[in-house]
Amino acid sequence: MPKTRLDTARIRAARRVIDPVFLDTPLYRCEALEPGLGCTVSIKLETANPIRSFKARGTELVASRLADRASRAVVCASAGNLGQALAWSGRRRELNVTVVASRLATRVKLDRIRALGAGLELVDGDHEMARERAAAIARYDGIRLVEDSLDIETCEGAATIGLELVDSAPSFDTVLIALGGGALATGVGHVLKAMAPGVEVICVQPLGAPALTLSWRQRRVVTTDSADTIADGVAGRYPIPAVLDDLLLVADDAVLVREESIVAGMRLLLDHAGLVVEPSAALGIAAILEDRDRFAGRHVVTIVCGSNVDADAYHHWVRSTPHHHKP
Amino acid sequence: MPKTRLDTARIRAARRVIDPVFLDTPLYRCEALEPGLGCTVSIKLETANPIRSFKARGTELVASRLADRASRAVVCASAGNLGQALAWSGRRRELNVTVVASRLATRVKLDRIRALGAGLELVDGDHEMARERAAAIARYDGIRLVEDSLDIETCEGAATIGLELVDSAPSFDTVLIALGGGALATGVGHVLKAMAPGVEVICVQPLGAPALTLSWRQRRVVTTDSADTIADGVAGRYPIPAVLDDLLLVADDAVLVREESIVAGMRLLLDHAGLVVEPSAALGIAAILEDRDRFAGRHVVTIVCGSNVDADAYHHWVRSTPHHHKP
Repeated sequence: MPKTRLDTARIRAARRVIDPVFLDTPLYRCEALEPGLGCTVSIKLETANPIRSFKARGTELVASRLADRASRAVVCASAGNLGQALAWSGRRRELNVTVVASRLATRVKLDRIRALGAGLELVDGDHEMARERAAAIARYDGIRLVEDSLDIETCEGAATIGLELVDSAPSFDTVLIALGGGALATGVGHVLKAMAPGVEVICVQPLGAPALTLSWRQRRVVTTDSADTIADGVAGRYPIPAVLDDLLLVADDAVLVREESIVAGMRLLLDHAGLVVEPSAALGIAAILEDRDRFAGRHVVTIVCGSNVDADAYHHWVRSTPHHHKP
Repeated sequence: MPKTRLDTARIRAARRVIDPVFLDTPLYRCEALEPGLGCTVSIKLETANPIRSFKARGTELVASRLADRASRAVVCASAGNLGQALAWSGRRRELNVTVVASRLATRVKLDRIRALGAGLELVDGDHEMARERAAAIARYDGIRLVEDSLDIETCEGAATIGLELVDSAPSFDTVLIALGGGALATGVGHVLKAMAPGVEVICVQPLGAPALTLSWRQRRVVTTDSADTIADGVAGRYPIPAVLDDLLLVADDAVLVREESIVAGMRLLLDHAGLVVEPSAALGIAAILEDRDRFAGRHVVTIVCGSNVDADAYHHWVRSTPHHHKP
């Protein structure tokens, strides 16, 4: 049993708090993908819900705990998916939700945050600047700050995906998990290591935003000066020490993939699985494409974690011919 | 309680036979669609499974009953989705499956039927010719013929979708159901009329393939000389009398929609819900687009029944500008 910050009994209890619309998501083998990948591939699909990502599993916990408090205000920084999730979970509990995002964030994510009734503050700079600003707002206003991957609710929420995987009587060898702040990887990884320790946990991050992967490899926090990837959902630069500690306990490997592989993964998922995914959700397929020998003959689960894309950017990615994409 | 050929207790029992990968599919409100449609819209998503359509709910019943018999051979005609489903359900029970399809059927559907190990026989002419040929094979070889919408298993399987809708404690006013052979409409319609009689059941068919809708309106079987629609999954010409009898008992209305509305529906589902759908699965959205006043302010569920599309045709449909599509 890994000694992470997570606790399996608490994760099970979390299932009773999360709106069922986000739970028990489809898990199915997708044979049409397999000739192109050389292994058995199952999809855990986290996009068929009101916010098109897994993030509400965590914000449901945050919001339900806040709903009992005197202060009903909450702020988070978000590349767009956490913000939508917190807006959705907060709206139904009449919380006052503020989301801070980069002015460069994916437009449709910002539009959806506004449409869900949250206050949206845009900052110049990248997601790390949004994190700083959100923390400042929380301090100044004395309200709850939700820090993705640091706050245990975000990890426990993501970890409920792990429970669904192990409860499916797993026949799989490996789970591929998009690595951003680390909530998804440490959450799902904790459950797998606790309940299905034979299953390999592989985290996947873009080469252009490698901070947490480099940190995992060096066993100490490594920051980067910039992040350059289309996978906006995982483009962090400042790993959180406590999250790295957990990741070191649960990840068997952390790999980096090229932008062109992410695009090829999105295209495969569209053409052979009929799935629209955002770049972060194609990281697992990208990892297989970059190292077919490693996965040959194995049964791999990839968590399709979000599908919030700008339509024009998406069509540009998936319909361009592969040689137009440079890493 | 409608006196159809279906029985609610048998439908409930069917859930225990169908592989769980096809059951309890996502049902969720999709607010991003709503500004474009003027009503509250929920999606019942039948595409996130190994065959990307609802059809395996029925073929699981067919195949499990055949698995106990001496004769382990079965044949069906299919536009492509029933064939994939029967191939999938038959393969795991070691049945000998033959699928008869039109040479003009969607290529990726035919490819998937072959990949799933079924024998595939192509006929010149349309789906009705395939039905004739499948019946001839069954007679000649003395094997089980699966007739979509006539065979009660296909209706009971589809009807399990209805159970999931009513078990969700429905807040919806209307369910929009693609109308082809009629299994989906009579199955879901039976359960709704039996268990949630206040919910309106509206069937939707393309103007270019209107045979069952015309039959419902005239309360007698009306055949057509041709079917001309991109919605290949519902392009029948010869309604089955027993199915029409049931449809007359459960449908509140049957409407016809233009091809350009089907394309507009596919595009809305892609751009605002992130869903790839085949044309038949966009019929419900098309019906709203053609009669916004009728649905204004109501809560409508549309069953997204399949996503098997040829990639090139799909991209042509969804990326063309609307004025390129003539009805």
